[in-house]
Amino acid sequence: MAKKNKQFVEKVTAMEDDFAQWYTDVVKQADLVDYGPVRGSMIIRPEGYAIWENIRDILDAKIKETGHENMYFPLFIPESMLQKEKDHIEGFAPEVAWVTHGGDEALQERLVVRPTSEVLFAEHYAKIIHSYRDLPKLYNQWSNVVRWEKTTRPFLRSLEFLWQEGHTCHATEEDAAKETRQMLDVYASVFEDYMAIPVLKGKKTEKEKFAGASYTLTIESLMHDGKALQAGTSHHLGTGFAEAFDIRFSNEAGELQPVHQTSWGFTTRSIGAMIMVHGDNCGLVVPPKIAAKQVMIVPVAQHKEGVLDKAYQLKEQLGSIARVDIDASDKMPGWKFNEYEMKGVPIRLEIGPKDIEKGQAVLVRRDTGEKLFTPIDELETAIPELLEDIQRSLFEKAMKHREEKTSVATTMEEFKNSLEQNPGFIKAMWCGDQQCEDQIKEETTATSRCIPFEQEKVADTCVCCQKQAKELVYWAKAY
Amino acid sequence: MAKKNKQFVEKVTAMEDDFAQWYTDVVKQADLVDYGPVRGSMIIRPEGYAIWENIRDILDAKIKETGHENMYFPLFIPESMLQKEKDHIEGFAPEVAWVTHGGDEALQERLVVRPTSEVLFAEHYAKIIHSYRDLPKLYNQWSNVVRWEKTTRPFLRSLEFLWQEGHTCHATEEDAAKETRQMLDVYASVFEDYMAIPVLKGKKTEKEKFAGASYTLTIESLMHDGKALQAGTSHHLGTGFAEAFDIRFSNEAGELQPVHQTSWGFTTRSIGAMIMVHGDNCGLVVPPKIAAKQVMIVPVAQHKEGVLDKAYQLKEQLGSIARVDIDASDKMPGWKFNEYEMKGVPIRLEIGPKDIEKGQAVLVRRDTGEKLFTPIDELETAIPELLEDIQRSLFEKAMKHREEKTSVATTMEEFKNSLEQNPGFIKAMWCGDQQCEDQIKEETTATSRCIPFEQEKVADTCVCCQKQAKELVYWAKAY
Repeated sequence: MAKKNKQFVEKVTAMEDDFAQWYTDVVKQADLVDYGPVRGSMIIRPEGYAIWENIRDILDAKIKETGHENMYFPLFIPESMLQKEKDHIEGFAPEVAWVTHGGDEALQERLVVRPTSEVLFAEHYAKIIHSYRDLPKLYNQWSNVVRWEKTTRPFLRSLEFLWQEGHTCHATEEDAAKETRQMLDVYASVFEDYMAIPVLKGKKTEKEKFAGASYTLTIESLMHDGKALQAGTSHHLGTGFAEAFDIRFSNEAGELQPVHQTSWGFTTRSIGAMIMVHGDNCGLVVPPKIAAKQVMIVPVAQHKEGVLDKAYQLKEQLGSIARVDIDASDKMPGWKFNEYEMKGVPIRLEIGPKDIEKGQAVLVRRDTGEKLFTPIDELETAIPELLEDIQRSLFEKAMKHREEKTSVATTMEEFKNSLEQNPGFIKAMWCGDQQCEDQIKEETTATSRCIPFEQEKVADTCVCCQKQAKELVYWAKAY
Repeated sequence: MAKKNKQFVEKVTAMEDDFAQWYTDVVKQADLVDYGPVRGSMIIRPEGYAIWENIRDILDAKIKETGHENMYFPLFIPESMLQKEKDHIEGFAPEVAWVTHGGDEALQERLVVRPTSEVLFAEHYAKIIHSYRDLPKLYNQWSNVVRWEKTTRPFLRSLEFLWQEGHTCHATEEDAAKETRQMLDVYASVFEDYMAIPVLKGKKTEKEKFAGASYTLTIESLMHDGKALQAGTSHHLGTGFAEAFDIRFSNEAGELQPVHQTSWGFTTRSIGAMIMVHGDNCGLVVPPKIAAKQVMIVPVAQHKEGVLDKAYQLKEQLGSIARVDIDASDKMPGWKFNEYEMKGVPIRLEIGPKDIEKGQAVLVRRDTGEKLFTPIDELETAIPELLEDIQRSLFEKAMKHREEKTSVATTMEEFKNSLEQNPGFIKAMWCGDQQCEDQIKEETTATSRCIPFEQEKVADTCVCCQKQAKELVYWAKAY
């Protein structure tokens, strides 16, 4: 952990004392967000939005590489349209915002501000899909959505958030299943390979699946405080929406068939995960691949001759190998150190008169605080290597943390003890009965996070009812 | 103009017969949009969205190059907040959508779905700006906005549209004035250098300026039917919002001063301009620099040995010099020709057995229909040159059209005759009195489009009242 700087430590609650307050302090102090005027809404400030732009661009490229096309659907959904798929409306009705007036007039039918766009896609697909030749249809949209949440926190649960939602139609159940899994793997790659956050891949239980889906696949990540966060979901919708919206195609034999659908979403919540996995008591730690700035140059004794010239020259020289910026403001270097630690810039580059004399610069890692005195003519190879090393270390550290925070339980007593003594994931066998799932939640507040693809048999019987176990489930308290 | 293909001509109304219907036919037939479920809302389909992505990426790069940062503000604005700036609320209140319920509960205060975000930015700026050191603040956001329009048309005027809105704060009136003009020039460059649409630059009259601005700068373009379209606006907001929202900074002398603000917006309306400036009776004509696909390869007699192989080989080979796609579906080549003419792909590349024998491919220009028999080993230089030539020709053609459609009027009779006989821009002197502006609109339905930066004196007296003229104004009927 980087050396603590007094000025900022005073502003940020220690995570050991109050993790929720630490989170709130960091998102504010690192200038990621400000609160919007409506309760639960957030302003994503430039420091936060730049991270989102990087994540979005990485994911968008992957979405396009896998053959999907972007498009844009309207914000408003007529109430009657949302009601066409019964499970769906039941799931979403309690948490939508309603538009009742346009200009001076009361509307004849209320409109929902989209909480998700399955029904809009479904109605459009019904119009444009006729034959097997029209399949698959692989569409995606980047947009804002609104969910009228009671308790909110920036990024994690807000009245409005940004996301992409993919919606696809396929000729067969198998094709839709492959797509559902493919997009989960894409999400997992963004989390693991770019955000340095290890994820568990698996399936949600019936209780936890998306309203209107046949099944939901999920990636689950573990935060620093031992609580889980659902990092992305990919739904196999089966033919439910196709039946409700009459999305049918004639197959090669000329028979009319409903399409098989998927939908999958990735949101600004991911930034919340990044904060809670990598952050420390000095603030954010942003993985190099998604950092707005990867290297911040801080001149030391910048009033002395040659220092600023050299600093700007380094910015110029290094600009092609990394995202480099310079802070040449008249603030004291110590304040700048604090500021960019708080903002999580991966590498600080210090350059002062003595360094120039020695032909060196000081590279300071945000993740470990380690100082590397590096010859100036080696910076162009040292910096990319260091960025890679930071990226790798962050992932390894997060993986080690997850492993340490994963326990096995075979009885409810073990389950409760583990949750208390080493909060994190609990691996426990389950009979498959929702009653046991409900009971576990009631007794422990932990929920089933996923039925992992990689199954193990840690016991023969259900952790709750002790009857014959069906499968392994990861449980945790969750965001 | 490309050779007319019967199949599609039957589907698209000729622009000479009914321009409005031609427009509607083209946006539908070229798969740019579909209508959304709520009156006046639109679904931007992949063909349309890909064009928007290209325009957006070009503009976003320019916005960042000029030092602006992206961020994101919430969708909802409390009613009381919108009311703080009086001109602003008066301008927008009649055309906003109102949210009155969240989940099952009636809200204590109604929320507006943002029609624009001046007030949100203003409140945030009041919190974060304290000193001259905090200035300028140069923020931008890409988002959707809603305006409850009575009559709507895809892209041109829709219930919801996509745009960017820049909002900046400056220490002096002059700095804000420079910014206002800089961003107008950025918009003009996107239109002229990328969308091949010539624009007039100038200032709006008091009557036509933005609700809440000191003054509004505008770029105005001329459509094929002689009607003008406001292509982008940049507003000098003065200190109106700063006073209403208390955005003040202490200057170097320690005195508290209101900031000087600007705002500027560029919307999906630009796609409407592209359609109406370049399109013809075969459909869209998309300028190469913003086209989703620049070259569409259509194999001829593709069942014959070697044709498809060669076609795919060309796609591979040309992929690094242009955005190239291939249509190897089992549709007849003639149908494919029609389809990509309708979609406005700049170059069609035909390759059949005879071409392969001769070592050539046929390049067909969408804009002129000209066929160029080109040796295969020259394609890599011929295609980029041809794309450049198409881009240039489109601009020149549009410029020639605008010049032909621009008349001078010194009396109201001339004004009316020109509007009738050669609909387009009318250059006429104005006394500066809003009464004359109102009267011109009433008598002719033409509105003042701009007071051009490049002033000329085409007469001594106002075209309407014949009193002493103050300045030249461009007038036109407008979208």
